Amino acid sequence: MAKLFKTVGIAGVGLIGGSLAKDVRRLGLAQRILGWNRTAAHAARAVELGILDEVLPTLEDLIQACDLVVLAMPVDVLVQKLPGLLDLSHEGQILIDVGSTKTALVQAVQAHPLRSRFVACHPMAGTEKSGPDAAIDDLFKGRFTLIVEGSASDPKAVEAIERLWLAVGSDVAELSADEHDRMCALLSHMPHVLAYALARTIKEAQRSSALDTRFAGGGLASMTRIAHSPIAMWQPIFQQNKANLLAAIDDFSAHLAQFRAAIADDDPSRLQQLMK
Amino acid sequence: MAKLFKTVGIAGVGLIGGSLAKDVRRLGLAQRILGWNRTAAHAARAVELGILDEVLPTLEDLIQACDLVVLAMPVDVLVQKLPGLLDLSHEGQILIDVGSTKTALVQAVQAHPLRSRFVACHPMAGTEKSGPDAAIDDLFKGRFTLIVEGSASDPKAVEAIERLWLAVGSDVAELSADEHDRMCALLSHMPHVLAYALARTIKEAQRSSALDTRFAGGGLASMTRIAHSPIAMWQPIFQQNKANLLAAIDDFSAHLAQFRAAIADDDPSRLQQLMK
Repeated sequence: MAKLFKTVGIAGVGLIGGSLAKDVRRLGLAQRILGWNRTAAHAARAVELGILDEVLPTLEDLIQACDLVVLAMPVDVLVQKLPGLLDLSHEGQILIDVGSTKTALVQAVQAHPLRSRFVACHPMAGTEKSGPDAAIDDLFKGRFTLIVEGSASDPKAVEAIERLWLAVGSDVAELSADEHDRMCALLSHMPHVLAYALARTIKEAQRSSALDTRFAGGGLASMTRIAHSPIAMWQPIFQQNKANLLAAIDDFSAHLAQFRAAIADDDPSRLQQLMK
Repeated sequence: MAKLFKTVGIAGVGLIGGSLAKDVRRLGLAQRILGWNRTAAHAARAVELGILDEVLPTLEDLIQACDLVVLAMPVDVLVQKLPGLLDLSHEGQILIDVGSTKTALVQAVQAHPLRSRFVACHPMAGTEKSGPDAAIDDLFKGRFTLIVEGSASDPKAVEAIERLWLAVGSDVAELSADEHDRMCALLSHMPHVLAYALARTIKEAQRSSALDTRFAGGGLASMTRIAHSPIAMWQPIFQQNKANLLAAIDDFSAHLAQFRAAIADDDPSRLQQLMK
C-alpha cells in the first residue's frame, strides 16, 4: 500500500495508540513512527517492542515533527490539551483523537481557528488490557471507527483519515457528537459500569461471606472481563458522558426490574418472553 | 486409565452431557456410552458425532442398561423425574445430575429409600451454546465440580464420581444445597439475569431509536454472550433459586446505585474507589 503519511506521531502508546502504530508499520502506511508518552517507561518499552522508531521528549516536539498525530489519551486530558495542541499545529497537518466521548471535546475546539485540522475518531475496538504490551495486530479489523462532526474538519483530512482506518481493516461511519455519545452510552459505557458494579458486588460478597470465586465458571469471567479496564481511562468517560450514561443505566435498571418482577411473581411465560 | 464404569448412560446429549461423554470416551473411562434424548434428532446427531455408541428408545431403558446414568436435563424436569428414576434403579448403580440448582432437587428425593444411589453434581463449566454439536473436549478442565449433600449418598458412589470428575480435569468440592444455591445465585444465576436484561435493553433501544449495534465493540459482546444461553434451561433455574437470586439481584442493584450516585454527583474519587 502507498504511504498515507510521512511521519506518524503516537501520543499515548497504550492499547489503542500502540495497536494502530503496529498496523501502520506492518502495512507500510507511513515512513516513520514517532511517539511520546506521559509515562516515559511506556514510551521506552514501545521502542523496545518495535512499535515506535523513536521517542520525542515532549508532546510539543511530537506535534512539530509529524504530519499525522494520534492523540490516544484519557478524554479529560484531551479536552484540556487539544486547543493548545491545535495552536502548535502546522499547515497540512492532521490531528486525530481515539477517545470514547465527543461532545465535550468538539465543544472545546468548536471556535478554534484551526479546528479543521482535527478529525474526531472513535475506533470501536479494545480489550481490558493497557500499556504498550497490550498492543496487538489487527485490533481494528472487522470493527467500526466512528468519525464525529466530520463536517467541521477539512474534507481532505477526513478523506485521508478514512483511508487510514479502512487500511487497518475498520469500517467507517460518520455521526454527530450527540448521536455518538448517546449511542456509546448504551453500547459501551453503561455495559462497563455494569461490569464494574458486578465485580464489586462479588468482591464485597467474598469479604462478608464464604463465597469462593474459584468455583465460578466462564459466565462470571465474561461478565467482569471489562471491569479490568484501566480506571484512569474510564472514570473520565463516565463523567463526560454523564447525562447519557445515567439515562442508559436507568433504562437497564428498568429492564432488570422487569426480570426481577417476573421471577418474584413466578411468571415463567413472562420471564421466557423477556429472555427472548 | 482404568475403566471407571462399564456402561455410561447420558440422558440429555447437549453441551454438558455431550462434553462429558466425549471426555469419557477419549480417556477410556467406560466400555460403552449409551444415550437418550427427549429430542430424538439430537440423540441421532450424537451418534453421528461419535459421542454415543447407541441410542436407547426411552429413559427407562437407559436406566436399566447402565451402571452410571448422567441426568443432563433442565432442573424442573429433574425434580419431577428423579424420584421415579430412582425407583427404577438397580443395586450398585449410580445416578448423577449436572444441574445448576440443588435445594429443590435434594428435597425431592430426601426421603426416597434409594436416595443413596444418587450423587448431586454441578460442574461449574459451560458455554452459551447447546445441543450435541456444542459438546467439546476438556470442557471441565481447570474448573470445579461441586458435589452437593454428598453425605446423603453412598460413600462408594461419591468416591467413584469424584474420580470421574478428577479424571476429566475438574477439581471437586463438597457443599450443602443451601451453600451451593446461595453461591451460584451470585457467581452464575444473577450474572445470567444481568446479561439477559442488558441484551433486552439494547434490543429495545434498537427498536425505538436508530441505535446501530454493528458499532458495538468487544465489550458488549462479552457482556451479552451468556444471554444466548438456552431459555428452556435457564428459566427454571431462575425460578428454583428464586429467593437467593432475588437477593443477589438486589445486592447488585444496590452496588449499581452507588455507581450511579457517584456519577450523578460528579464525585471522581468516590467513583474511582468503587471501580477498584
